[in-house]
Amino acid sequence: MNEVTVVDGHIWSVPGFNAFGAHCNLRKKRKDFTIIKSDTICNVAAVYTTNKVIAAPLLVTKDNLKNGKAQAIICNSGVANACTGEQGIKDAHTMASVASHVLECAPDDVVVASTGVIGMPLPMDKITKAIYFVSDRLGKECGAEAAEGILTTDTIVKEVVVKADLGNTIVTIGAIAKGSGMIHPNMATMLSFIVTDALISSDVLSMALSSSVDKTYNMISVDRDTSTNDMVVVLANGKAGNSPITLGSAEYDKFLAALDTVNETLAKMIVKDGEGASKMFEVHVINAPTLLDARKIGKSIVSSSLVKSAVHGGDPNWGRIVCAAGYSNAYFNPSSMKLTIAAEEDALALFEDGSPTNYSEKKAQKLMQKEYLTFIVDLKNGSSSAKAWGCDLTSEYVKINAHYRT
Amino acid sequence: MNEVTVVDGHIWSVPGFNAFGAHCNLRKKRKDFTIIKSDTICNVAAVYTTNKVIAAPLLVTKDNLKNGKAQAIICNSGVANACTGEQGIKDAHTMASVASHVLECAPDDVVVASTGVIGMPLPMDKITKAIYFVSDRLGKECGAEAAEGILTTDTIVKEVVVKADLGNTIVTIGAIAKGSGMIHPNMATMLSFIVTDALISSDVLSMALSSSVDKTYNMISVDRDTSTNDMVVVLANGKAGNSPITLGSAEYDKFLAALDTVNETLAKMIVKDGEGASKMFEVHVINAPTLLDARKIGKSIVSSSLVKSAVHGGDPNWGRIVCAAGYSNAYFNPSSMKLTIAAEEDALALFEDGSPTNYSEKKAQKLMQKEYLTFIVDLKNGSSSAKAWGCDLTSEYVKINAHYRT
Repeated sequence: MNEVTVVDGHIWSVPGFNAFGAHCNLRKKRKDFTIIKSDTICNVAAVYTTNKVIAAPLLVTKDNLKNGKAQAIICNSGVANACTGEQGIKDAHTMASVASHVLECAPDDVVVASTGVIGMPLPMDKITKAIYFVSDRLGKECGAEAAEGILTTDTIVKEVVVKADLGNTIVTIGAIAKGSGMIHPNMATMLSFIVTDALISSDVLSMALSSSVDKTYNMISVDRDTSTNDMVVVLANGKAGNSPITLGSAEYDKFLAALDTVNETLAKMIVKDGEGASKMFEVHVINAPTLLDARKIGKSIVSSSLVKSAVHGGDPNWGRIVCAAGYSNAYFNPSSMKLTIAAEEDALALFEDGSPTNYSEKKAQKLMQKEYLTFIVDLKNGSSSAKAWGCDLTSEYVKINAHYRT
Repeated sequence: MNEVTVVDGHIWSVPGFNAFGAHCNLRKKRKDFTIIKSDTICNVAAVYTTNKVIAAPLLVTKDNLKNGKAQAIICNSGVANACTGEQGIKDAHTMASVASHVLECAPDDVVVASTGVIGMPLPMDKITKAIYFVSDRLGKECGAEAAEGILTTDTIVKEVVVKADLGNTIVTIGAIAKGSGMIHPNMATMLSFIVTDALISSDVLSMALSSSVDKTYNMISVDRDTSTNDMVVVLANGKAGNSPITLGSAEYDKFLAALDTVNETLAKMIVKDGEGASKMFEVHVINAPTLLDARKIGKSIVSSSLVKSAVHGGDPNWGRIVCAAGYSNAYFNPSSMKLTIAAEEDALALFEDGSPTNYSEKKAQKLMQKEYLTFIVDLKNGSSSAKAWGCDLTSEYVKINAHYRT
C-alpha cells in the first residue's frame, strides 16, 4: 500500500473505538447527539477556539484533558451552551458526570462538546436521556450515525478513515467533523473528533495536531466568524502495536502525513459544505518570503467577500484577488507578483510583474466558471508556500443566516 | 447659531471653490468625471489606503502633496487605474499634467483619483476629453453634479456642507464622498474630498484629518475589503479670514468638531448605501479599558457576516454579537459584559455578567426589526468608548458582486 491511503469506513472502524449518534429531540428532526467511546483509556491532544468568549463545554473539557488522558467524547447539537454563565459550566459538568456513570469511565476522561445556538440553556432532561439512549446503542452502529449527530446547518456528513504504513505497523485514523457557518478558524474551528489506534504520547500527539491544524482547518474560511465552541480533539488508544512514535522519527513524519490527509479532507468538506456555498476554490501561494506571509495571503484571499462573490458569478475579476493579497498584512512586493487561474488541466496567467498579461477574457471567463478553481499566487520572493480553501458567497448564505433561529 | 450646523448646499458652496461632474463615456450612462478647483492655492492634508497594492493615482497624488499644497482634484470613475504597472503611473501623471494645463495650475498641485474596475488601463483619450469638458463647465454648476461624478455602485449621492462658528469667524466645510462596496477602512477607505475656507496649516489640518478619519470612516464596514484606491483629501483655502487654527486651541476643537460632523455624516451615508444594504446599525462600545479595545470590538461586530445577516433577518441572535466581540483581539472580560439593543426610544438588555437576562423574546424581535438599531456593549471595565456603523448583508450584495463587470 501507499504510505497514506484513504479507505472506506467509519470512525468506529478504528480498532478499539465505538461511536453512535441519534435523534434525541434537541433539534426538530435531525440527529443531535453523538458519543465516541474507547474501550481503554487514550492519550489525547486538543486545540480550542481562540475566541475570548469560550463556551462552557470547552472550559470543562480543557480542564478534563489537563492530564493528557481521555476515554470518551460526547457532543450535542442544537444548543451551544455558550454565554450561559455559571449554569452553563454546571450543565457541562453534569454532562461529563452522567456520561462517566453510564460509560463507566472517570468524569475527567470525558470530552464534552456542544454546538448550536448561543445563549440558550441546555435542556438537561433531554441531554441526560440522550446519554442513556445513545450509550445503549454503542457497538450496534451500522453507518455514519456518529458523524450525523454532530451536524447543525451542515448538508453533508464529514467523515474519513485513513490507513498509514509506519514501516512495521499499519495504523488507522478515523475522524468526523462538523462545520458550515461561523467558520474562520484561528487555531481551531468547528468540531473535529479524531481517533486512532496508533501508540503515541499525548505530548507528541499535541505537536502533530497543532502542526496539522495550522495547515488544514486554519486555512479555510466560510464567513470569517470564529466560533465560541470550536475544538479539534484526537484520541489515541495505542492498539496498533507500533513502537511509540517519537518526535523527529520517520514514523512521526508518516503519522503526521496521515493526520494531514484526515484533516485536509475534512477541512475541504467543511468549505464545500459552507453555508449556501455552490462552489469551492483553492489558493496556492508559492515562493513567499516566509510560511506566515504565504498563509496570511492565502487566508486573506479565501476570506474576501468580493473574491467569493466573483467566484460565485464566474467573473474573472482578478483585481479583487490582488487587492485581498494587498490588505493581508503579509510582506511581499506587488510588482513582482504573478497570478494564475487554474482549473482541471488548464491554466491562464492574468497578472504579472505589476501589470495585466495580455490574456484572453473569454478563456479567463471559461476557467472562472469551473466547479473547482485554483488561484496560484507566485510572489517570486522566497521559497515558502501555503494552500488555503474557500467557498463562494451566495444569496443562500444570507437566507440561512438571516433566520437561523426561526 | 450652534457651534456646528449642517446647512443646505453643495461642495461648491464653500467660498473660493468650484466643482462640476459630468458623463464623459467612461461608464455606460452615469456621470463619471469630477473636477474640484480652488481659485487659489490651498493647504492640503490626505490619508490613503493601507492596502499594500496601491493604485497609480494614489502614488502620483502622494508625491504631488509632499509640499502640503494643492489647488485641484480630478477624479474619474469606471476604471481604478490599479494593478496597471508603469503604464498606470504614466497615465496618472498625464492626467495631472493635462489638468494643470487646462486649469492653469502646477501639475504637482493636482490631486488625481480613480475608482472602478481594477486591472484595466485608463482610456486616456476619453480622460483627456473629460478634463476639457468638465473644466469648461466649472462655475456653471447648479447641483450635485460633482458628487455624482465620483460614484460607482453607489445608489445615493453623498454630500454635506457644515458651518462652524470658531468664535470670531464662521468657516464652511463642504465635502463629497463615494463608497458602497470594497469598504473596510483602515486609515481611510473609499474617496472623500473635503474643502474648507478655514485658514489652517497643512500640518494642523493633517492632525485634524487623521483624528477625524479614525473616528468616522475607519469605524464603518460594508464587506471587510480594503480597496487599493481609497483616499480622503481636504483642501483649505484660508478665505474665511479666521486667525490660523493652532493645535490645542479652542478654535482647533471647534474646527475638529465640524470636520467630525462632515466625516461622520458621509461615513454613515456610505454604510447606508452599502452594496445591497437595506438597513444600517450602530455599535456603541462603552466603559472599555482603552480606546483601541473599544474600537476593535465595535469594528469586529459591524464587520461580522453573521451579525449582519441577523440584522437583515430581524433575528435577535445576540450570541453572534458577543461572539464577534470575543474574536476582536480586544482586551475585556466577557463575564462582566452587558449587551443592550436600542432602537428609537426603546432599549432591552439581553446579556449581562456572562448570562442571558430574562428578556422578552417578542420585544427583542420587535426591536431587531427596526430600521436603525443600536447595540450598546458595556464592558464595565474602564472609561473609553467608541462608535462603529455597519449595514446588513443581503442577497442583493451577492448579486451585485457576482457580476460587477458584466
